[in-house]
Amino acid sequence: MALDETHDPQRTSWVASAQAHGEFPLQNLPLGVFSIDGDTPRGGMAIGDSILDLKAALAAGLFTGEAERAASAASGATLNPLLALGAAARLALRRRVFALLSAGDPAAGAAQKLAGNILHDAARCTMHLPSRIGAFTDFFAGIHHATNAGLRRNANPPLTPNYKSVPVAYHSRASSVRASGFPVRRPNGQHETAENQPEFGPSRKLDFELELGSWIGPGNALGDPVPIARAAAQVAGLCLLNDWSARDIQRWESAPLGPFLAKNFCTTVSPWIVTIEALAPFRIAQPPRPAGDPRPLDYLWHEGDQQNGAFDIELEAWLSTASMRAKNAPPQRIALSNTRHLYWTVAQMVAHHTCGGCNLEAGDLFGSGTISAPDQSGYGSFSELSFDGKQPLTLASGEKRAYLEDGDELTLRAHARREGRVSIGFGDCKGTVVTAV
Amino acid sequence: MALDETHDPQRTSWVASAQAHGEFPLQNLPLGVFSIDGDTPRGGMAIGDSILDLKAALAAGLFTGEAERAASAASGATLNPLLALGAAARLALRRRVFALLSAGDPAAGAAQKLAGNILHDAARCTMHLPSRIGAFTDFFAGIHHATNAGLRRNANPPLTPNYKSVPVAYHSRASSVRASGFPVRRPNGQHETAENQPEFGPSRKLDFELELGSWIGPGNALGDPVPIARAAAQVAGLCLLNDWSARDIQRWESAPLGPFLAKNFCTTVSPWIVTIEALAPFRIAQPPRPAGDPRPLDYLWHEGDQQNGAFDIELEAWLSTASMRAKNAPPQRIALSNTRHLYWTVAQMVAHHTCGGCNLEAGDLFGSGTISAPDQSGYGSFSELSFDGKQPLTLASGEKRAYLEDGDELTLRAHARREGRVSIGFGDCKGTVVTAV
Repeated sequence: MALDETHDPQRTSWVASAQAHGEFPLQNLPLGVFSIDGDTPRGGMAIGDSILDLKAALAAGLFTGEAERAASAASGATLNPLLALGAAARLALRRRVFALLSAGDPAAGAAQKLAGNILHDAARCTMHLPSRIGAFTDFFAGIHHATNAGLRRNANPPLTPNYKSVPVAYHSRASSVRASGFPVRRPNGQHETAENQPEFGPSRKLDFELELGSWIGPGNALGDPVPIARAAAQVAGLCLLNDWSARDIQRWESAPLGPFLAKNFCTTVSPWIVTIEALAPFRIAQPPRPAGDPRPLDYLWHEGDQQNGAFDIELEAWLSTASMRAKNAPPQRIALSNTRHLYWTVAQMVAHHTCGGCNLEAGDLFGSGTISAPDQSGYGSFSELSFDGKQPLTLASGEKRAYLEDGDELTLRAHARREGRVSIGFGDCKGTVVTAV
Repeated sequence: MALDETHDPQRTSWVASAQAHGEFPLQNLPLGVFSIDGDTPRGGMAIGDSILDLKAALAAGLFTGEAERAASAASGATLNPLLALGAAARLALRRRVFALLSAGDPAAGAAQKLAGNILHDAARCTMHLPSRIGAFTDFFAGIHHATNAGLRRNANPPLTPNYKSVPVAYHSRASSVRASGFPVRRPNGQHETAENQPEFGPSRKLDFELELGSWIGPGNALGDPVPIARAAAQVAGLCLLNDWSARDIQRWESAPLGPFLAKNFCTTVSPWIVTIEALAPFRIAQPPRPAGDPRPLDYLWHEGDQQNGAFDIELEAWLSTASMRAKNAPPQRIALSNTRHLYWTVAQMVAHHTCGGCNLEAGDLFGSGTISAPDQSGYGSFSELSFDGKQPLTLASGEKRAYLEDGDELTLRAHARREGRVSIGFGDCKGTVVTAV
């Protein structure tokens, strides 16, 4: 989308906590599903330290026309109906809520009077998954991670021959995706012993993966591929995604059909959908490919997407061990990366996923694959940070980490920043490892 | 379950077409979702050439107690609510419907009087998917197919080292599963040319896969593995499943994360859930493993399942080309196999799938993997039948087939037969290949 007044850095909200909030200023307005005091989950938008209750605002008569249709679609326990409406409805809702929450906007008076009814203290709310996820597809588009994974497999060259032609992906498990904060139980599973025997027990190589998630809408019909020129319009917004992985299980089970139990025990997402509209100021050209890399095949090539189809979003992984928390020591950042390190854009992922006719549905979730920076300071998994455990990371607390240990709390964060623009954030994507059953 | 009067071969139905029906005699009573004249889809049970309308029978007051609860759960547009109830409700429904449709049963009079309201001519009905499929997992448990696939990859030995320890599986795509009869569009996708260049276009190696499907219910909570002793109770019934595959796309895309677009353009299932209760007379011991094969690890080992956890079900694949149909020539059977050739039982698949905590949901679908017999007469895919196109099959019509061609109609069939028992069938699992877009 073109930038409009909803990106204007001069505009502020009458919700005081939204000023310089870092995550959820007036210019962000992410979509999510919340509940409060155990009541029915429903759609909301984050503003500062508050949540705008879309159902309550709708009931109060604050919406008309396309925005009313969108708010109505966001009033239920999942946002699938809103995602199904596509970009125009989402944009109408954004523009109307922006006006309602803007200091000095003619529309704001009515909303401000109703603040007690339509705004909730976010700290008192429970966040839920934003959609009933029909399918979760995980890509492998972080080229530095793909390279490191190849090195761990002793592959030479480390990237598979298809990597620069195919946005490699696999279907993962939708039923075990959970919103930030859900405890992550260490999985049991089969791994191979040093004596090449199969053994069943708790994973000894429990890992995180720093990924960007994409929420899909409106979707396409079976047999009706989405051409690359229209593919970006299938993405409603983004989130953080931690694709928890059990590397020992993965290594033993993956031949010949890929990862399965190593990934399906839990996946954590940040609960807010940061909309594509909010992210418009943070678009960048597809990062330059190394000299000699092939031009993508035609079905993956769109000039506009190449010029402005990627994102500049800073990504971080923070670790807090049980011992650190006991001593009130702050979490430690263990990785700093950026979505610039994706080899494929989200639009290319959509075009590829549907090129054979596969149907996407509103509320589907894509993972990007682990986004590692080129050097160790930005490796987005322990398999990379510790070189598969061979060089454990020494933390500021003095503890060492080859992989995640029980009690470890891992938090992903994301921020988009640009000179002259108001920074926005994604909110936390957090999980604490609990002991295997 | 133990055999009961619903398996009694002496019992017959007052629905005349059910006698010696071959597919749907009184002893089968499979569950499905149908509609007629474009009205609302709802649950039904096949009896001979008719469908018992469970919603109409419920409204007519033919059910009480547990059977009423089950019929009510089967009255909507999907059977997920019935599958969620588990075995006791399914069994109560089976016993009551058996009585209602049995010639000479005291309960039958009331039903027979209402026949015009509660029975529909199956030929006039449209069959739908029996559930909203939350997830579709495809296993690789046909050991002869796995061996042949390894030979095609030039792997030595052909089976991967994990094969006899791990019920290998991958997550596949639920959104593109369709009921028998849905046309299968040849997918476009990337393959590698003879000059090792990526190329985009229609698949040249479109294949079928002869599989057994399993419908899951009631499901388990995330983090709560299903122990092997209780795993069989998670399977409501079986179907046929054709996992259409594009072998050229598969070969190029699969490294390192497994098949994706090669499989997700369409999967066809037979629309009837043949219940585990109907299949009770056709149970067999886990087929003997070759001498020297390892005993499964404890979490996959259950004496009862080893003794009686597999099925003796005959499987067939039939091909009818456009030219054969134009000449009114009958379809040709190209494969005859049996579920005996599965290396893992469905209970073992459930125990494995959940051992790390992954949650199954009522209405999930498992594929078994292609079930090939040891010799070419029972190979369940063209990649095996034609040795990846190197030795095309010569049909009785004189045509040759390396892979499927546009206009080919492929039908899977299944029958369970045992001396002294009434044979039951699964109904057709059919699809016709249409030209790529």
